[in-house]
Amino acid sequence: HRYRIAVVPGDGIGREVVPEGLRCLRAAARGHGFELDVTEFDFGSADYWVRHGEMLPPDWREVLGGFDAIFFGAVGRPDVVPDHVSLWGSLLQFRRGFDQYVNLRPVRLLRGVRSPLRDHGPGDIDFVVVRENTEGEYSSIGGRIFEGTDRETVVQETVMTRTGVDRVLRYAFELAAARPRKHLTWATKSNGISITMPYWDERAAAMAGRYPDVAADSDHIDILTAKFVLRPQDYDVVVASNLFGDILSDLGPACAGTIGIAPSANINPDRTWPSLFEPVHGSAPDIAGRGIANPVGQIWSGAMMLDHLGEPDAAAQVVAAIETVLDEQPEVHTPDLGGSATTEKLGAAIADEIARA
Amino acid sequence: HRYRIAVVPGDGIGREVVPEGLRCLRAAARGHGFELDVTEFDFGSADYWVRHGEMLPPDWREVLGGFDAIFFGAVGRPDVVPDHVSLWGSLLQFRRGFDQYVNLRPVRLLRGVRSPLRDHGPGDIDFVVVRENTEGEYSSIGGRIFEGTDRETVVQETVMTRTGVDRVLRYAFELAAARPRKHLTWATKSNGISITMPYWDERAAAMAGRYPDVAADSDHIDILTAKFVLRPQDYDVVVASNLFGDILSDLGPACAGTIGIAPSANINPDRTWPSLFEPVHGSAPDIAGRGIANPVGQIWSGAMMLDHLGEPDAAAQVVAAIETVLDEQPEVHTPDLGGSATTEKLGAAIADEIARA
Ligand SMILES: CC(C)[C@H](C(=O)O)[C@@H](O)C(=O)O
Ligand SMILES: CC(C)[C@H](C(=O)O)[C@@H](O)C(=O)O
Repeated sequence: HRYRIAVVPGDGIGREVVPEGLRCLRAAARGHGFELDVTEFDFGSADYWVRHGEMLPPDWREVLGGFDAIFFGAVGRPDVVPDHVSLWGSLLQFRRGFDQYVNLRPVRLLRGVRSPLRDHGPGDIDFVVVRENTEGEYSSIGGRIFEGTDRETVVQETVMTRTGVDRVLRYAFELAAARPRKHLTWATKSNGISITMPYWDERAAAMAGRYPDVAADSDHIDILTAKFVLRPQDYDVVVASNLFGDILSDLGPACAGTIGIAPSANINPDRTWPSLFEPVHGSAPDIAGRGIANPVGQIWSGAMMLDHLGEPDAAAQVVAAIETVLDEQPEVHTPDLGGSATTEKLGAAIADEIARA
Repeated sequence: HRYRIAVVPGDGIGREVVPEGLRCLRAAARGHGFELDVTEFDFGSADYWVRHGEMLPPDWREVLGGFDAIFFGAVGRPDVVPDHVSLWGSLLQFRRGFDQYVNLRPVRLLRGVRSPLRDHGPGDIDFVVVRENTEGEYSSIGGRIFEGTDRETVVQETVMTRTGVDRVLRYAFELAAARPRKHLTWATKSNGISITMPYWDERAAAMAGRYPDVAADSDHIDILTAKFVLRPQDYDVVVASNLFGDILSDLGPACAGTIGIAPSANINPDRTWPSLFEPVHGSAPDIAGRGIANPVGQIWSGAMMLDHLGEPDAAAQVVAAIETVLDEQPEVHTPDLGGSATTEKLGAAIADEIARA
């Protein structure tokens, strides 16, 4: 089999971790007898913006639409272009334009990684955040009035649709039904955000009725963040709106040691358009250019891509290699893991482990 | 001096912790030579709602407006009245109606309390969340269209005003300027929430220019929650919008051991109307009626009230008594602290300590 992969490294550490991701994907391809046909693009970056005054070419949907998947690094160089411009001009375009309505973000405490939480060891934290990825709080409706005066007022609308809410809930319930613990928690804030969040609750409760085998409950986002720290072992599938999912999928990985290892899959489950795979971390301008970024988030995202492409064995092997290397080779840990190795060193060690297995 | 205090116990554990709060306040009053003139109200509770079909009497502003402060427990009994109805009908009315535009929520790891985070001991975590408390994401503008159909769409508007944003930022910068570390972090999410949050950034940057002695920086809310877990010692004053402040002020206390001890002050800095003091935790229907709730959040909120009333010595003494008892008397720890004592036992021990000192 041959898969056509579009690669968009983006900015900052995105450019440093993507090559390690590709190195590991190629090792997996060799071992499992499939081919990767990789095309790299320079758009979706601050450099491109400087040259073209926009983040993407006008025909980006045609250019990328025919690929089997998109392997994405990270976007953001706020010294050159404001983050809301660069992100709305690239990543958020992809998520919407390719209707990648599920953002799947597994959180696992791996062997070899130290959780900042006491009393928690490998295996103890193992849940998935299912984030709504196209609507909700990330809306482009709103504006400013009475600019520059004391009456200045800014408004932004959160928009939820039945279609948008139900499809991500359904995905999350299906996922929970297929997992051993069959437990789903939906994040809400219906006591304070009194219009959209009660709607979210209503749809979640209706969906729960259709999945009697899934134990479903909800937590308000404030207490849910507290519980991630106090009782992360209680969670299995956590489904959340765009903003709440964004928050939970950074907090969860922090509880499991570092956001440097956290992967994500922006999925179009209908497979009408390509899905996009990227680490949870961003372009990290503070450490960019030093070669010390953790490549595991990118590599693990590659594993999720393989799974999506129909190569579950290769995917599982990549994840296993990550865990083996983190566990057995502390000398290749990057600084965020308490080590002093480079991005390349950790990437190469994982690729070797994949080749070896 | 004589202070007129309105007491609104509310629902659930609110009714169990308020008496302990009052017990400690009375002990402090005796020791410091001032008087508390306490009037208790039954509104702002599910019982009241059942009897009257509303959460508050129509003249609540006149009834409460003349008091020096409001000592509030917690509202919420979702089995009787939906949370958004009970909260918007009571607590959120007070915050807005009395223009309590600052919600001050200190987070401290006290002696005698175990943090769920490794490597952190007493003194290590010591910051204040300053939450905007009247506007932002907690808005009542919005609605539903195409109800009951596949096109169903729900909209809710976030509203920020220059007045609302600037006054809470100014309060936070003043607070930071008066603290030894003089460090302020503002929470944002301007890369995703692309209209209101860039505005928040803009006003915060402008305000930072007026406080050259304050070291000001910002974090996106997602990574900020991660950093609370990974590096809580880095924070001093954290200023945030209504929703982000809500989240951070539950997460912070969880990192410092338990949200059962976290206090809050809903302040009208102009003193046109009474300020309101309440624990961060809610009515906790799951443990209500069992007499095991931690009263420290309520007692500490009482200390913040004393400070606001102009009794800083008494306030400091209450906080010191809390810490001494938690440190020296593990036998009076409630279950959330790992003990098995009752609400009353812990409350009485703190009141005794106040009386003793
Ligand atoms: C009960 C709820 C409406 C309230 C809020 O969100 O403000 C609470 O969580 C708080 O933090 O005081
Ligand atoms: C960069 C930013 C717009 C993005 C988001 O908020 O979705 C990121 O935080 C993420 O989680 O993928």
